[in-house]
Amino acid sequence: MADFFVHSTAIVDSEQIGAGTRIWAFSHVLKGAVIGEQCNIGDHCFIEGGAIIGSRVTMKNSNMVWEGVTIADGAFIGPHVFFTNDLYPRSPRLQEAAHRYENHGWLSETHIGYGASLGAAAVILAGITVGEFATIGAGAVISKDVAAHALMVGNPARQIGWVCRCGLRLDIRQDQNAKCHCGDEYGLAEEGLHRISAK
Amino acid sequence: MADFFVHSTAIVDSEQIGAGTRIWAFSHVLKGAVIGEQCNIGDHCFIEGGAIIGSRVTMKNSNMVWEGVTIADGAFIGPHVFFTNDLYPRSPRLQEAAHRYENHGWLSETHIGYGASLGAAAVILAGITVGEFATIGAGAVISKDVAAHALMVGNPARQIGWVCRCGLRLDIRQDQNAKCHCGDEYGLAEEGLHRISAK
Amino acid sequence: MADFFVHSTAIVDSEQIGAGTRIWAFSHVLKGAVIGEQCNIGDHCFIEGGAIIGSRVTMKNSNMVWEGVTIADGAFIGPHVFFTNDLYPRSPRLQEAAHRYENHGWLSETHIGYGASLGAAAVILAGITVGEFATIGAGAVISKDVAAHALMVGNPARQIGWVCRCGLRLDIRQDQNAKCHCGDEYGLAEEGLHRISAK
Repeated sequence: MADFFVHSTAIVDSEQIGAGTRIWAFSHVLKGAVIGEQCNIGDHCFIEGGAIIGSRVTMKNSNMVWEGVTIADGAFIGPHVFFTNDLYPRSPRLQEAAHRYENHGWLSETHIGYGASLGAAAVILAGITVGEFATIGAGAVISKDVAAHALMVGNPARQIGWVCRCGLRLDIRQDQNAKCHCGDEYGLAEEGLHRISAK
Repeated sequence: MADFFVHSTAIVDSEQIGAGTRIWAFSHVLKGAVIGEQCNIGDHCFIEGGAIIGSRVTMKNSNMVWEGVTIADGAFIGPHVFFTNDLYPRSPRLQEAAHRYENHGWLSETHIGYGASLGAAAVILAGITVGEFATIGAGAVISKDVAAHALMVGNPARQIGWVCRCGLRLDIRQDQNAKCHCGDEYGLAEEGLHRISAK
Repeated sequence: MADFFVHSTAIVDSEQIGAGTRIWAFSHVLKGAVIGEQCNIGDHCFIEGGAIIGSRVTMKNSNMVWEGVTIADGAFIGPHVFFTNDLYPRSPRLQEAAHRYENHGWLSETHIGYGASLGAAAVILAGITVGEFATIGAGAVISKDVAAHALMVGNPARQIGWVCRCGLRLDIRQDQNAKCHCGDEYGLAEEGLHRISAK
């Protein structure tokens, strides 16, 4: 088993956790959950079997990551992000709906791209893909797929701009490139943002 | 006492819990809380004295159910649903507001109907009634009573459609009945949805 | 050390906690966090080093209070309020963003005023000041500073009225003063609400 840290009050039932990852107080990682290397998983998190988390992910407190949710390397998951995996949930214990839970047809997968950031209390509907380096504002409700590098806010969320790989907002227009404080330069075309040169 | 399951890290101070109910890690059920049979209460929940939860309820993680909240049989409570019981809260420890907390006049009750579903991070304002089989979308803020079978989204929430008893969305109009995949058939009138025939 | 109460399942690493304060189950107060006297901190809270909480604050469950957040005396923090301290977050473990986290330039401070109330699931963006006695509705997303006594709702939040020091809504217009049930009387001018006489 890899060399990872588990706080004395956390419960970790998975052995698929990478080296250098730390799991903090009152968190619960179930059997079958996969977490990569060098991650930081905050207090009061719940990682379900079937959830897949990459390496170098920063996950703040109180996140619940369900079966069907995949998070790529380097993502930032703010406090209390709300993942979901069922678009039309019912209690499986409800007689009128129990037939819908006899197999996994109810499950819709979610994919969070490399280096993306999900702000505090963002809601990610089941079945969504968030592109790499996108930033979801705090409290946004994401009901459609999100383009790489897009900055999204609101309920339902709309795109209000673009962010750099480093996370800062770009002052960019269709007809004018933008250089970030970090040195990266980007251009904008119909198919989205593209990087022109690196620092 | 009924035969229910309590995870070794959970704290349960109530004896009013029905047979077959399971209460998971780091959850806290206070004295005076009532929970029915065959429920599943996820991790990190907090059920206050005065809260009443029916049978066969599926309650996902991190729910706080306050005094004054009543949840009927078969409801689905998604992760981190936000119940409230005070429309104009102040710290009772604030001198300027302490007089408002000398009795229970501040408390407004909430009622969640039979078989209803509350999506992740939905906010239910104090004093609300959610009708049976209604579905509240993830992140919706419910500020008015919700009709039976209604599908609600947004902040503030508005109705965008209707759902079947089994939870699936119905393709229904005032002038045309709808048959769900599960076999139930519904009609729509001014007073709301009504079931015409069962599967 | 002052005489404060810590539940047997809570973890408290700070000694800067005032007399009469109570910290409930599964909560975690880190070294360097400051909490005043006579506060009530609910279950599943996380108070980070650098967070400053005044006296007589009522903090409901599942709050995460980060470095850079200051809460004045007598505030009400509802369940799961979402504080943030970084407007453009990235994982500090992401190579492309690590340079932004070499110093504290990423941190924006938040200030919650005396006697203010933050409703359940309210989102407070980094860098915000909420005025004294303001009330933030449940689920509101606060993206701009909030005036004293203002009542805010929605995403993004807008002001829909004014509240008294005791928390109740005032029926007030520019040309007509209002007397609250508690006896306080207020007038409204361009610069905001002002109290004319006390009960």
